Amino acid sequence: MSLTNAGIDGGRLLADLYRLRQIGTYLTGVHRPTLSEVDMQARHWLCERMRDAGLEPEIDGIGNVIGRGRGEAPRVLLGSHIESQNHAGWLDGALGVMYGLEVARTMTEQRGGGVDVAAWADEEGHFGSFLGSRSFVGDVSEADIDAARNRYTDQTLRQALADAGLAGRPRALVEPGRYLGYLEAHIEQGDALEAAGLRIGVVTGIVGNWTFRISVTGVQNHAGTTRMAIRKDAGVALVRLATAIERRFPEIAGPRSVWTVGRITLSPGSPSIVPGAAEMIFQFRDVDPVILDALHEALRELVAEANEGPCEVTLEALSCTIPKEMDPDFQDALERAAARLAPGMHQRMPSGAGHDAQQLARVMPSAMLFVPSIGGISHHVAENTTDEDIVLGCEVLAAAVGEILAG
Amino acid sequence: MSLTNAGIDGGRLLADLYRLRQIGTYLTGVHRPTLSEVDMQARHWLCERMRDAGLEPEIDGIGNVIGRGRGEAPRVLLGSHIESQNHAGWLDGALGVMYGLEVARTMTEQRGGGVDVAAWADEEGHFGSFLGSRSFVGDVSEADIDAARNRYTDQTLRQALADAGLAGRPRALVEPGRYLGYLEAHIEQGDALEAAGLRIGVVTGIVGNWTFRISVTGVQNHAGTTRMAIRKDAGVALVRLATAIERRFPEIAGPRSVWTVGRITLSPGSPSIVPGAAEMIFQFRDVDPVILDALHEALRELVAEANEGPCEVTLEALSCTIPKEMDPDFQDALERAAARLAPGMHQRMPSGAGHDAQQLARVMPSAMLFVPSIGGISHHVAENTTDEDIVLGCEVLAAAVGEILAG
Repeated sequence: MSLTNAGIDGGRLLADLYRLRQIGTYLTGVHRPTLSEVDMQARHWLCERMRDAGLEPEIDGIGNVIGRGRGEAPRVLLGSHIESQNHAGWLDGALGVMYGLEVARTMTEQRGGGVDVAAWADEEGHFGSFLGSRSFVGDVSEADIDAARNRYTDQTLRQALADAGLAGRPRALVEPGRYLGYLEAHIEQGDALEAAGLRIGVVTGIVGNWTFRISVTGVQNHAGTTRMAIRKDAGVALVRLATAIERRFPEIAGPRSVWTVGRITLSPGSPSIVPGAAEMIFQFRDVDPVILDALHEALRELVAEANEGPCEVTLEALSCTIPKEMDPDFQDALERAAARLAPGMHQRMPSGAGHDAQQLARVMPSAMLFVPSIGGISHHVAENTTDEDIVLGCEVLAAAVGEILAG
Repeated sequence: MSLTNAGIDGGRLLADLYRLRQIGTYLTGVHRPTLSEVDMQARHWLCERMRDAGLEPEIDGIGNVIGRGRGEAPRVLLGSHIESQNHAGWLDGALGVMYGLEVARTMTEQRGGGVDVAAWADEEGHFGSFLGSRSFVGDVSEADIDAARNRYTDQTLRQALADAGLAGRPRALVEPGRYLGYLEAHIEQGDALEAAGLRIGVVTGIVGNWTFRISVTGVQNHAGTTRMAIRKDAGVALVRLATAIERRFPEIAGPRSVWTVGRITLSPGSPSIVPGAAEMIFQFRDVDPVILDALHEALRELVAEANEGPCEVTLEALSCTIPKEMDPDFQDALERAAARLAPGMHQRMPSGAGHDAQQLARVMPSAMLFVPSIGGISHHVAENTTDEDIVLGCEVLAAAVGEILAG
């Protein structure tokens, strides 16, 4: 086992990142929705950068940009995404793709190649859920594409692909055996590294995200004339359930579990009407399937208890993603690189957000590296990371990739 | 003191009510928004009925229909409203106006007159709050009218009045000394009478309605990456406060107090975002000013306690109406009439809903009578009362009016 010197060019990396930030600039962030004009401009710009780096670029039939290196195996795949959330930050996704490009250049300089780079389409979910990386691992059908629409504009994905000049192009599929594995770097999007005074996070796994719609049906009535004793107030039942969840969940949650009521609706929503219906969207996340199951079981029990009251309460799963452990050997490689380049300033940690790596992990060994987010802010134009942390993260990634390629 | 025989014509009353129901019919209810074409059709139809009954009708500059009887004092004023909530019930308001017309006819037959009848404009609040009856008691300025807009269509009240042919008409004002007082009959809009197997309610007072906006400010964040320990979740703070209210209010409420959270909003309302702001509309009602004050004090204390948590909580009063006691002599007259015509089937009770009588009570002795609502349903096309209860209520009102006029 050899620890190659990282040897990346930090100035070159930052220059590329800042050039990408100029495409679709919005205040101090960017606005590059999937397959929009500026997003396609960014994808074509990325193809040019890949060509300059000696990679053979392709934009496939769903918008994935894949740059393949010349030369023989062994190879690793590095990537993330370059479209953005609406009116959001400049580093979410872009960081990992530009790291890929810089590490590809470095590996070409150091060992003649060994890195392919991908920018997965629509990680941010304008049209679906991880459409690009799921397509690459064979989990998106033509019927899925027919059905997909932009959640903000209602444009069909087919029309958006046609407008982007991608209609009829083949979709890239993973070539079995081509890669030793996949690595993705990303901003943390939380404050754990910053709060601990650390600079590198080695991701142990990507959390499962279980999201539910909880619906309550009561009886709508006049809020002035309906006695308290006979009310079937759907809002009161919903608030009681939310309170019961807040009380119960900490007792069974793991140290990194999170749970959130993101939306509450009372119907009809008038000051003088007892709500006849109520709804909340409730989500919890953890990296441990045992904890996810325990939280789910507790939620089902609390809903059952709520049903003993005057209102009917139903629980509907909207999505349950499976948590993905990151590859242990890759974690070790990342940790060794961090120990050398950022001694005492790294930790292992789960990812609370979803990432393309959870899709790639279905078909090859995969791992992730985090750099700190200033103030923990993400999905906002204020999202940022210091230049020093950006460069350090890329050095650690390059060192780990060098070690993995060296075998 | 003499108890005159009621002597109303139940068939005539029901025929008028059913004819009014034909104007703006919607399913089994009506849709007659204030100053709409069908509403004005109903007002002109009412003028014709008033003329037939020997009253001199006028539609004033805000849409009030007032029919004045000929002959000398003493006189009483009877009324309610004939516009409806959108797509709502056929008896809300219409019952009291048609009772007025029938009692006016009966008093003319029995004693040559003594009753004026009013249909107050916009009790249902399409443009404001009790605009017609408040105008009649001198509590609406021209500037108020300039500022008023339809809450559903945003049309100005000025334009609506012009479209209705009422621009430039004078507004009727109460003539000091013309009336012994005001009586209004109404459907209960709750289930108290039905639940107790009773047929007549003598209203003791109209509740005060205190409505508040409670706003919570926290910090918006990513729901996957933000640890529970550092969250300032505005939704959690709001649910905790709502729960504290639900726990505390029963301890200090009166037997007829009601309180309602009619609306909850979490911002931005996304499944994967910790809410940075939250708001609820909270209302309580009681007929007793001491209880209203105690509930208000408790609410302020709970908001202050909520402010000790991680989020900022503010309390803003949207409206605080003063409860109105009904005239004790009129209550006695109504109760004696009920005791004679519906022995053992009447009770005294507060009105949980607001009514024009609370405005008239500011300038003359006022009282109200309730008839049962089937299933307690109101503000819905299913709103109904049996023909027998409709006729009985009018008989009780006529008997009380006869007694009041007889002095």
